[in-house]
Amino acid sequence: MKVATTLAEFAALRTQLAGPVGFVPTMGYLHEGHLSLSRLARSSCESVVASIFVNPAQFAPSEDLSSYPRDLKRDLALLEAEGVNLVLAPASNDEFYPEGYDTWVDVAGITQRLEGAFRPAHFRGVATIVAKLFNIVRPQRAFFGQKDAQQAIVIHRMIHDLNFDVELVLGPTIREPDGLAMSSRNFYLTPEQRAAAPVLCRCLNRVEILYSQGERDGEALRAAMREVLQAEPLARPDYVSVAALDTLEELKMIAGKALVSLAVQFGSTRLIDNTVLPPGKALV
Amino acid sequence: MKVATTLAEFAALRTQLAGPVGFVPTMGYLHEGHLSLSRLARSSCESVVASIFVNPAQFAPSEDLSSYPRDLKRDLALLEAEGVNLVLAPASNDEFYPEGYDTWVDVAGITQRLEGAFRPAHFRGVATIVAKLFNIVRPQRAFFGQKDAQQAIVIHRMIHDLNFDVELVLGPTIREPDGLAMSSRNFYLTPEQRAAAPVLCRCLNRVEILYSQGERDGEALRAAMREVLQAEPLARPDYVSVAALDTLEELKMIAGKALVSLAVQFGSTRLIDNTVLPPGKALV
Repeated sequence: MKVATTLAEFAALRTQLAGPVGFVPTMGYLHEGHLSLSRLARSSCESVVASIFVNPAQFAPSEDLSSYPRDLKRDLALLEAEGVNLVLAPASNDEFYPEGYDTWVDVAGITQRLEGAFRPAHFRGVATIVAKLFNIVRPQRAFFGQKDAQQAIVIHRMIHDLNFDVELVLGPTIREPDGLAMSSRNFYLTPEQRAAAPVLCRCLNRVEILYSQGERDGEALRAAMREVLQAEPLARPDYVSVAALDTLEELKMIAGKALVSLAVQFGSTRLIDNTVLPPGKALV
Repeated sequence: MKVATTLAEFAALRTQLAGPVGFVPTMGYLHEGHLSLSRLARSSCESVVASIFVNPAQFAPSEDLSSYPRDLKRDLALLEAEGVNLVLAPASNDEFYPEGYDTWVDVAGITQRLEGAFRPAHFRGVATIVAKLFNIVRPQRAFFGQKDAQQAIVIHRMIHDLNFDVELVLGPTIREPDGLAMSSRNFYLTPEQRAAAPVLCRCLNRVEILYSQGERDGEALRAAMREVLQAEPLARPDYVSVAALDTLEELKMIAGKALVSLAVQFGSTRLIDNTVLPPGKALV
């Protein structure tokens, strides 16, 4: 496995890769979710590229950029064990955002809802770094996790709208034994918060059961999630949502596909989770 | 020469081109300025692609989208005579902006000045369509005219910021014998307006003379342009500018490189022109 710490190094190493190239972009501090995406890439692509970059453009000034967990040495060992061929891990933010940087990719509409309503510039930062990475890595396939459902929908929209010749492949959410969706931010949780955190998954399970019993009323399903959350004193919900999968607008009644999602704070740690209805339907 | 009217057709034909590929994006109604860019591309690239698309996203509702001159048959004959290999001339705007389209490329800062101050969403539309075209055409070199100087600076910024692997090549402004910069919009001018229009070029010439005589005061040079314009009753200036080439901020004194530019209305037709100081220096 080769590791490039500058874009110039990366460009030289990229020319040596046989195609098709699969790409797994990450912010590091890897967990089984990331590794399952590497494996998915490995199984369908001749070469696998991963990137490790905590992208400042997707954090608000009030957010956890400086405290975001980092462990490059461990990350590289994990990626090497998965058979990744080339890693882009820039030594400096200037590689991506040099002096005078001033170009932004904005997906409108769907980025105003859900996570975007709570994190206003977040998806602008995500879309911009992914557009840059697509141009730098030139992958045939890019692998993202369904755990960040709205991110996947935004990237899908951007790929389509800006005519990127990249196939988006989504990997399923990987969960701890108690149902908590894996996330680098789980690391922040105190033991008490960690014990409370599976409440997100329980909300989704509750909705899936109600749906299987025929409930289609959006507000009834949202109310069911709120009820589950109220039983957990450490959980402070940002939102619970039952939204149309294409527009992310809240649904009165579920007719087609729906994204059921929620964001919950435990102390200063913010966790998200989601599921798609009908169960098993693809996100994009 | 092959002509694609859909993106699917284009993608199939693009695979047959040998590289390096040169790309000349146009809004059609071609003049010698466009053709000189085709020739520049022809001389340095194995294959040449041109596009003809009047991009609605770069016109404000009040602007001349519907009246913008079009003559596809003539354009194709001209491009064929220049040895262009492949033309993308979409039959419908939906090829580029289908239902649900919602992604925009924004170059901040420099797009707020000069043309951007008078045409607020213009450069967003330009950057977006050029990003799309780069992904569709995948050229090694892209050819733009220096006549649209701010556009060239914006595209240069976008290529660099979004890591497009495209070399920007600028062709010189091509002028009529009386000095008027060639533009498809010259077609709108009445005979009286056409006779008055070389006043833009005379402004630039006046500045070049003063500069050669040692004048470096930005306001003195702007005042000289205003004076030349006042002598032409049909000319209604939007702006005259002597700006820093990197930031496009108006200069008090010229120390390094400067962009001298102006926009002038004749009736409902708006013309622009520019020159770089010191004479002969590159725009980007």
